[in-house]
Amino acid sequence: MKLVDNITGVEVLAGDECIALLATEEVGRLAVSVSGHPHVVPVNYVMDGDAVVFRSGDGTKFSAAGTVVAFEVDRFDRGTRSGWSVVVQGRAEEVTAADQPELVERVSSLPLSPWASFDKPHLLRIRPTHISGRRVG
Amino acid sequence: MKLVDNITGVEVLAGDECIALLATEEVGRLAVSVSGHPHVVPVNYVMDGDAVVFRSGDGTKFSAAGTVVAFEVDRFDRGTRSGWSVVVQGRAEEVTAADQPELVERVSSLPLSPWASFDKPHLLRIRPTHISGRRVG
Repeated sequence: MKLVDNITGVEVLAGDECIALLATEEVGRLAVSVSGHPHVVPVNYVMDGDAVVFRSGDGTKFSAAGTVVAFEVDRFDRGTRSGWSVVVQGRAEEVTAADQPELVERVSSLPLSPWASFDKPHLLRIRPTHISGRRVG
Repeated sequence: MKLVDNITGVEVLAGDECIALLATEEVGRLAVSVSGHPHVVPVNYVMDGDAVVFRSGDGTKFSAAGTVVAFEVDRFDRGTRSGWSVVVQGRAEEVTAADQPELVERVSSLPLSPWASFDKPHLLRIRPTHISGRRVG
């Protein structure tokens, strides 16, 4: 069954389809508040069940730890003007070996290798409180 | 000359290169604050000089009018694990025919056609106060 937003006419994706689509990509965009203003940065991520996991240095991404963030993944085809997007909202938490050794071990085994190779000592995880997805075209 | 961030080792793009790259794409991601929390949505856009222009209905995107937003565009190649991203920060303003007839006329002639075809009566413009870009791989 195809769900359609009755205001926009755009197809709305079910939660399980959103999670499945998130697992097909490896770069998303993390939106955080910095000094009260929104900021957005691309991140390499991997899924751990329905949670988004990424590594961070000490900069913008790490400032998200302990705050509510939004995370967007999409795939669009300019030729056919079609595609999908999924947005996850939730609190970003730092995952440490001291607090959650089993989680660190599991996450460390996931295929997460940042493209930018500078040191990223922090492991962050977004546990979704809201997931939405849309498909156009 | 190639500029490199001395903390991360990532290549930093000059402002004119960022503007040139923005002009090569047509979908970006708009980060806004909604009830104090960051939210991010994909948008079809076009460049008007160094300003980002997009259409909006009455939803999340339009809530950005009059506020400081961040706007991200990227292109990544998973095969080579390389790509670039550009982030624009600035105030989003609604552009109306009453206030800025010449601007509306000029912007209306730009190749801006939203992929999702529902009614989007508002025209918004982000005038950058800060532009940054990175290249990896």
